[in-house]
Amino acid sequence: MKLLIDNIGELVTNVAGIGEDGPLGIRRKAALLIEDGEVAWIGPARYAPAADRRIDADGRAVLPGFVDSHAHLVFAGDRAPEFAARMAGQPYTGGGIRTTVAATRAASDDRLREIVGRLRVEALRQGTTTIEIKSGYGLNVADEARSLRIASEYTTETTFLGAHVVPTEYADRPDDYVGLVCGPMLRAALPYARWIDVFCERGAFDADHARAILTVGQAAGLGVRVHANQLGPGPGVQLAVELGAASADHCTHLSDADIDALAGSETVATLLPGAEFSTRSPYPDARRLLDAGVTVALATDCNPGSSYTSSLPFCIALAVREMGMTPAEAVWAATAGGARALRRPDAGVLRPGVPADLSILDAPSYLHLAYRPGVPLIIQVLHNGVPQWQP
Amino acid sequence: MKLLIDNIGELVTNVAGIGEDGPLGIRRKAALLIEDGEVAWIGPARYAPAADRRIDADGRAVLPGFVDSHAHLVFAGDRAPEFAARMAGQPYTGGGIRTTVAATRAASDDRLREIVGRLRVEALRQGTTTIEIKSGYGLNVADEARSLRIASEYTTETTFLGAHVVPTEYADRPDDYVGLVCGPMLRAALPYARWIDVFCERGAFDADHARAILTVGQAAGLGVRVHANQLGPGPGVQLAVELGAASADHCTHLSDADIDALAGSETVATLLPGAEFSTRSPYPDARRLLDAGVTVALATDCNPGSSYTSSLPFCIALAVREMGMTPAEAVWAATAGGARALRRPDAGVLRPGVPADLSILDAPSYLHLAYRPGVPLIIQVLHNGVPQWQP
Ligand SMILES: [Zn+2]
Ligand SMILES: [Zn+2]
Repeated sequence: MKLLIDNIGELVTNVAGIGEDGPLGIRRKAALLIEDGEVAWIGPARYAPAADRRIDADGRAVLPGFVDSHAHLVFAGDRAPEFAARMAGQPYTGGGIRTTVAATRAASDDRLREIVGRLRVEALRQGTTTIEIKSGYGLNVADEARSLRIASEYTTETTFLGAHVVPTEYADRPDDYVGLVCGPMLRAALPYARWIDVFCERGAFDADHARAILTVGQAAGLGVRVHANQLGPGPGVQLAVELGAASADHCTHLSDADIDALAGSETVATLLPGAEFSTRSPYPDARRLLDAGVTVALATDCNPGSSYTSSLPFCIALAVREMGMTPAEAVWAATAGGARALRRPDAGVLRPGVPADLSILDAPSYLHLAYRPGVPLIIQVLHNGVPQWQP
Repeated sequence: MKLLIDNIGELVTNVAGIGEDGPLGIRRKAALLIEDGEVAWIGPARYAPAADRRIDADGRAVLPGFVDSHAHLVFAGDRAPEFAARMAGQPYTGGGIRTTVAATRAASDDRLREIVGRLRVEALRQGTTTIEIKSGYGLNVADEARSLRIASEYTTETTFLGAHVVPTEYADRPDDYVGLVCGPMLRAALPYARWIDVFCERGAFDADHARAILTVGQAAGLGVRVHANQLGPGPGVQLAVELGAASADHCTHLSDADIDALAGSETVATLLPGAEFSTRSPYPDARRLLDAGVTVALATDCNPGSSYTSSLPFCIALAVREMGMTPAEAVWAATAGGARALRRPDAGVLRPGVPADLSILDAPSYLHLAYRPGVPLIIQVLHNGVPQWQP
């Protein structure tokens, strides 16, 4: 089956050097051929090859599917009242995570599947074709393993975050909890996890604990990512670089040394403006990172406590409004940037040979993702070459 | 035909004093009966009357349709490159309006209908069941009349905004343009307009010009609304109150005297945070207005220059994040507040006898409109009792 998307007004490929200048690799008046779920050909619409089926993009923009490299989808319960209280002036401390832990432990497997599945579809409808899903609301051996098992039914990008916060039952003996995470919990998580992550922050895990956990996970074959420098300055970013992490996430409070460390590394700075929006915190300075040569990704941080959005278009609009990114930089960060943060060269890009994961916008340009904030512009998503709904 | 919406987890009625406390008039475990396009009955789900058809809300929240009391939908062309340049540091001056005027004048009636119709549907899908539409990109007799004629095909809430900006051809003789607006242009607009509006701002129309235009419009039977105090302090708000305007819109830069004037009047302060978002300007202080007892509405200001969003959920999320409104105040402002700003007691409220205009959220509470920013939560809209799409 050959499917041709024809009459593309503006095709974002993220292949630098082809089409127009800039990292988005824009082609105009283009067509894209899909065969066996992969991109088979990209070229001028007037040279479009024959196909079995054709989608007329009618001058609209087409871009690679979003890659959401940071999402906490395995949980139960919501925290809307906590959100409303915070908006009335109460600060975000992360302590509410324990509320979600209790609800998650109490939920059945099917209830968790229902929640993950619903959020996965919600994200897909907004253009997210690749998504990372973390554990971190189980915080015991059985519930962390189960969270990852369920996550692995929805994505290959699963992350073991047993070290999200020290659970109540270990409050007075955090060393014991770190031992549990490094031992039995990691062993139970391994069959379902690709990545390991630690919330390295005052009130969660310090540098020594984080290093111990990440090192043992890395030795077991997991890739490393770190929740770093969200609530204040800290050692998370430098630890991420030291361990060769794929990504340091949040990066809200950075020193010059942190920026230098990132710039000299392969570690992506993943910015999560939904969290700053929903906790009314200062936004990270993406401009400073970009000007220093750091690779920047945008992700949602979708979770019921601090950022209950699944919308990368919303994150793009915020990044442009609040973080000094151009619309092009923000769109690149939410596609190719996310793919770098997951070390997935086959995602966030449109070139022959990669899975045909893409979105069609009800707009002539990717610019509209920032220019038309809040508007659901994505009218069709193709995942592995398959249109996700009827036109 | 009787249609019952059953199993409503949380019903926002905006009828103060019924159900739970607060202006939202919340009822839980409710049902709502629709007959002949109107709300016929509201009560506990367990007492729901028989009906010909039933929608199971399955515990979801239902709220009155949004009332967008400020939208500029009759235009042609977009200004995405201007937006991108502004985000790179160029300030918003309002000068780009003339770009849209040229494109609008050049467009055919059918092209304008296509644009208005598309944006109207886009807004409806996001829960907006009542919308005001302004002229203001014609700026000559024929094109203002035509803009209003087309607007009147889509809404009863049409606003004559010939005094949007002085068009280029009158740049050196603004008095002559005001004479045109007050005479031939107003006469041509009258058959299609319910309201008259002036952009009273430095660089547009001063207080004397604005008063002259609004007074003659009022004498001809139009209701008054004013674009006031957007770009800096100015006379707009006080003029609006002086003339008994239904609404003073923007209200970004207010003195204590402006606030006092609004508080002692029937004039609604309509806040348009999409404009501040997209022009990277400071937000209006809704808290200050609310604490002074001013009635506040939220609207989109949907237009291709300074706020190209049609999303009231997005405006609600911004109002909570940036303007000191509680989620309840913001939802009230986008429904009942907008209705006040249009002097429409039949809109923005759910009680027997009003048109059945409402949204069903894919969420258990109205809180999620702010708690889940950017996520398209509205899964069904009823307009005059008619579901707008298949479930
Ligand atoms: Zn996170
Ligand atoms: Zn306006």
